[in-house]
Amino acid sequence: MPRTTTASFPSVELHNRSGKGPVVILCEHASPDIPEPYHDLGLDPAHRFSHAAWDPGARDVAMALSRALDAPLVASRVSRLVYDCNRPPEAASAMPERSEVVDVPGNRNLTEAQRAQRIESVYRPFCTAVTQRLEERAASHLPTALITVHSFTPDYHGKPRTVEIGILHDADRRLADAMLAQSHRLAHRQIRRNDPYGPEDGVTHSLKLHGIGHGLANVMIEIRNDLLGTPADASTMADELLLLIEPALAELGFEIPIRGDAHDA
Amino acid sequence: MPRTTTASFPSVELHNRSGKGPVVILCEHASPDIPEPYHDLGLDPAHRFSHAAWDPGARDVAMALSRALDAPLVASRVSRLVYDCNRPPEAASAMPERSEVVDVPGNRNLTEAQRAQRIESVYRPFCTAVTQRLEERAASHLPTALITVHSFTPDYHGKPRTVEIGILHDADRRLADAMLAQSHRLAHRQIRRNDPYGPEDGVTHSLKLHGIGHGLANVMIEIRNDLLGTPADASTMADELLLLIEPALAELGFEIPIRGDAHDA
Repeated sequence: MPRTTTASFPSVELHNRSGKGPVVILCEHASPDIPEPYHDLGLDPAHRFSHAAWDPGARDVAMALSRALDAPLVASRVSRLVYDCNRPPEAASAMPERSEVVDVPGNRNLTEAQRAQRIESVYRPFCTAVTQRLEERAASHLPTALITVHSFTPDYHGKPRTVEIGILHDADRRLADAMLAQSHRLAHRQIRRNDPYGPEDGVTHSLKLHGIGHGLANVMIEIRNDLLGTPADASTMADELLLLIEPALAELGFEIPIRGDAHDA
Repeated sequence: MPRTTTASFPSVELHNRSGKGPVVILCEHASPDIPEPYHDLGLDPAHRFSHAAWDPGARDVAMALSRALDAPLVASRVSRLVYDCNRPPEAASAMPERSEVVDVPGNRNLTEAQRAQRIESVYRPFCTAVTQRLEERAASHLPTALITVHSFTPDYHGKPRTVEIGILHDADRRLADAMLAQSHRLAHRQIRRNDPYGPEDGVTHSLKLHGIGHGLANVMIEIRNDLLGTPADASTMADELLLLIEPALAELGFEIPIRGDAHDA
């Protein structure tokens, strides 16, 4: 897959960095890549490219939203098992020894120096890339909402999940509420608030740090990954999500860019 | 003490409701009043007007800040022991059976109906009064920061506290950071971040609901109540706090009203 990166942030990819749309898009679990020095973290090959290592399909959706909304996209290029960019350094889940049923031998008994190396090489560059986008936009007086795109597995610990799209929020629920108010536009979808995860699961780190911390309306979108099996599926899902996102942004007073492939939204 | 109230919110007092300054001020623990039907909640008379029932001096500071900043002030007229307006209805501490060393017999074994009555008569009117101010100001395009004013006891469970002014925040730390950056202006004071309480103590409910929930910069100021023994002390403390607040607001891009009693800030 093509990547635009900067020399100073080899662990982060940026797309449409100067996009003038009203949104910045994040994708913390965009990639299953485990850089060579980490020796695949000792993972069982059966799990090496499973949802434990990344959020399959999330990057494709994020890219499609970035194009449609003329939005800068900041995505991690490194597996969440090396460092989960949606977790603060002090969280055990930032470098988990176990993820659902997947053991991660390469994360056992990490020294402070090893943890610090991952924080500096994966987490800090991601945060810095986001912060730079937000600061550039603030300096240009561009109103900004924050959207982070994730996917989840259709069954977890053997239990099937019926929710298809989760709209997640922490204490700032403005954008989530406005999107949920548009759910009737996707009547065929099971759309739920703070499901299958919510703030109590520790998944709102980016929302709090980059959204709430700057007073920006924000939302985390979780998509069941069986709906993202192919790039075409991901593109269709992005089109569906735009039916929630665009009127929600308009409701909050943002100006929506006019697109060639205009929707009825 | 003189009160301006509206007929529909007898449990709330509003001051300077149309103030055009860049701040809305809250004071949830402004009053020790326990309306007659609650029979003093069965409190030991020794504790009836103690800091368990209210935040002594906080209202005087809040009033002084309201005047200086031309800021609307929303204050509860009812003791926190009837309903603590800085707690959500589901929190046990909203109608506590015990507060530090003080038993509150009138809060034991409350029925759902009794809890609902207090929520509707004390908490909802307070929240509605705040929300109305914020909506009126948004409609008038008035930029708004949120400041809530509290006081704390100099010793808690027998342990003396050295902190004199606490600058408290939750995930949005913009205003707190900007105020703390001005601490050198009050070099004689012990000023600390998230001390003697912080978000982990459940004290940031109003900040989250009214500040973060609307994307507004926000802060909670806690003042040790031995520094607020007289109205003159409270007025002096308000003047000190303005040395932090005014440059902090300016740093965040708010316009500060020009006052007759101008400070060097």
